[in-house]
Amino acid sequence: MSEYISESTDFKNSVGIVKTEFFHFADSPDELVLSNGFRLGPIDVAYETYGNLSEKKDNAILIFHALSGDAHAAGFNSADEKKPGWWDIMIGPSKPIDTDRYFVICANVIGGCKGSTGPSSINPQTGAPYGISFPIISVKDMVAVQKKLIDYLGIEKLHCIIGGSMGGMQALQWLVSYPKTAKGAMIIATSPKHTAQEIAFNTVGRYSIITDPNWNNGNYYGKSLPKTGLSVARMIGHITYLSEEAMTRKFGRKTIENKTGREEFGQLADFTKEFEVESYLQYQSESFIKRFDANSYLYITKAIDNFDASDGYTGLSEALKEVEAKCFVLSFTSDWLYPKEQSLKIVRALKINGIDTSYANLESAFGHDAFLIDDERLKKIFAGFLCSIK
Amino acid sequence: MSEYISESTDFKNSVGIVKTEFFHFADSPDELVLSNGFRLGPIDVAYETYGNLSEKKDNAILIFHALSGDAHAAGFNSADEKKPGWWDIMIGPSKPIDTDRYFVICANVIGGCKGSTGPSSINPQTGAPYGISFPIISVKDMVAVQKKLIDYLGIEKLHCIIGGSMGGMQALQWLVSYPKTAKGAMIIATSPKHTAQEIAFNTVGRYSIITDPNWNNGNYYGKSLPKTGLSVARMIGHITYLSEEAMTRKFGRKTIENKTGREEFGQLADFTKEFEVESYLQYQSESFIKRFDANSYLYITKAIDNFDASDGYTGLSEALKEVEAKCFVLSFTSDWLYPKEQSLKIVRALKINGIDTSYANLESAFGHDAFLIDDERLKKIFAGFLCSIK
Repeated sequence: MSEYISESTDFKNSVGIVKTEFFHFADSPDELVLSNGFRLGPIDVAYETYGNLSEKKDNAILIFHALSGDAHAAGFNSADEKKPGWWDIMIGPSKPIDTDRYFVICANVIGGCKGSTGPSSINPQTGAPYGISFPIISVKDMVAVQKKLIDYLGIEKLHCIIGGSMGGMQALQWLVSYPKTAKGAMIIATSPKHTAQEIAFNTVGRYSIITDPNWNNGNYYGKSLPKTGLSVARMIGHITYLSEEAMTRKFGRKTIENKTGREEFGQLADFTKEFEVESYLQYQSESFIKRFDANSYLYITKAIDNFDASDGYTGLSEALKEVEAKCFVLSFTSDWLYPKEQSLKIVRALKINGIDTSYANLESAFGHDAFLIDDERLKKIFAGFLCSIK
Repeated sequence: MSEYISESTDFKNSVGIVKTEFFHFADSPDELVLSNGFRLGPIDVAYETYGNLSEKKDNAILIFHALSGDAHAAGFNSADEKKPGWWDIMIGPSKPIDTDRYFVICANVIGGCKGSTGPSSINPQTGAPYGISFPIISVKDMVAVQKKLIDYLGIEKLHCIIGGSMGGMQALQWLVSYPKTAKGAMIIATSPKHTAQEIAFNTVGRYSIITDPNWNNGNYYGKSLPKTGLSVARMIGHITYLSEEAMTRKFGRKTIENKTGREEFGQLADFTKEFEVESYLQYQSESFIKRFDANSYLYITKAIDNFDASDGYTGLSEALKEVEAKCFVLSFTSDWLYPKEQSLKIVRALKINGIDTSYANLESAFGHDAFLIDDERLKKIFAGFLCSIK
């Protein structure tokens, strides 16, 4: 998701102050066996919950975050936090994912850098960060870890699972891995597997990171960070999250004064800042590199590229055969990263199995990031679908 | 253009061995005054010609190359050159741009690195390469230099001007700058001005170059080159030149054995090579950095981003008011970098002025690079249009 989404909600309408919690498991010798056979442990999972779990434990909704997201989906981690969690417009009292009614859970994925075990975590065997000795993880592993968390919370069946983008992949994988454990599923702006073009964009981002001299084979913790590599990766991602229309509306060909004052660039000074969109991309990437770990970017994009919901099955419909959830698949007209055809593959695979599935291709100018935008139609879809799950 | 275009034609059917020639002008104190007021001189222009200029000098066709192109559009520069010029499929005896009939000229743009004066050229005042002391150049300056060449060759009126992508911008700018000097114009897969998204892609490429430590404020000649920065820029460009469909057909999700043998990457080894498309992008960019100068990439992409054919006019139709050429505008269905709407803006502006204009949106799976593909329909369009010019 991009910082383009700057919708802020006020404290009063939010879930208020929330504390990120940690679930610890997979201590030696009970490490988690990953889908590629490697063993990973111990594992910490950073997660947040909003609302109260009912006595019957039947009102839980699990939210999966996107590539650059984290467990902090709603409310404020402290009284002086300026922006609420990344989906605060959607999660809270009387909001579409209504915390007066539902118990909402969001966990940081493994491989991430926001509290869950990832390449920047300390490898207990060496006392140093894993770096690239961290095993390759898959979307399947991400949801396996979240299933452990759900088990730990004593929840047998979720009211709904919801995710957009990489979160949608996790929702889809959850349906494949644990088809009988969710009553509802919202699969948003995503794909059952990446196309060559989607892989290509991530490839450039990864290449840019690993060729940054500061990357240093992943051993940069406590040293100079591979900032420019990660910046470039983020810029590329960012372009793919926005539609041409949204960019044209927001920036067009507007230019700004060159504020860099970088006289050493001579005639070239305006190579770095001239069009507003140039300045914007630079600003966004500078903000991103402060909050994200380059190795996590490598591991997570690789998991996304490797993801194929039908892995181990003859096809997607066979993979989804056992699903008991009522499903909603959602795409956006201007999302050129995950165009509607990719959502329709999911819809067809679900329908072939007779699964109760709704689909919408929502008219939107905001591109891939549309699911993060404050949009009344979107809110109605969410509230309506969650109510319809019996 | 991309190396994806590997169509080779045999020697017999080509214009044979051609020598790149050089036109020298703008010696002190008669430097060329650029559109931004800076003076540049002396200027060398590398160009090639194919076929013979008629006595009346009325059979000349000027070809404009794209971002990464050069003057070598057809034939072979030596008997052992493996691949012919970049548009050999189109230019030659009995080919659509028929050298038995037409005198074809192609010149490397200024700012380039293939023989024409650019940032890698020696600044006679310092005896060292210009680097970033080279003045910012515009598409208008590129065609102004080519007009000098045409004057030097004694040609008053061109039979046709032809260009795709950045070449199309030059063709359009030629019509604005010298509206009475071409009888025909083919404007292919281009735009009258870049959108924010098109600027954004170039921005990332430039950012990637200038943040490469080897870029060294443009002073890298004779030292380590900013290879990784230029590689990343090329990879991004490359993705935008291909359609999703072309990439899917060519690569899909095919994987290859990791041939890097880079064991130091540990688990990460397959971050660099795994999917075929990853390996392909790396291979292509490695080939590109051997033949292209990073500073030229900066200057030329900036010229493209700054280009606005209506600059100095109330609009595009006013800019094209004086055009006397018969025009053909061509776009491709799968070109998502320059979608048909951008070509249609050109068509409308020409038609408003009552200019004889044809337009086609050719069904093609090859994306932006479609004009470089060996395609019978394309060849017929070219041959037919060139014949129709009276």
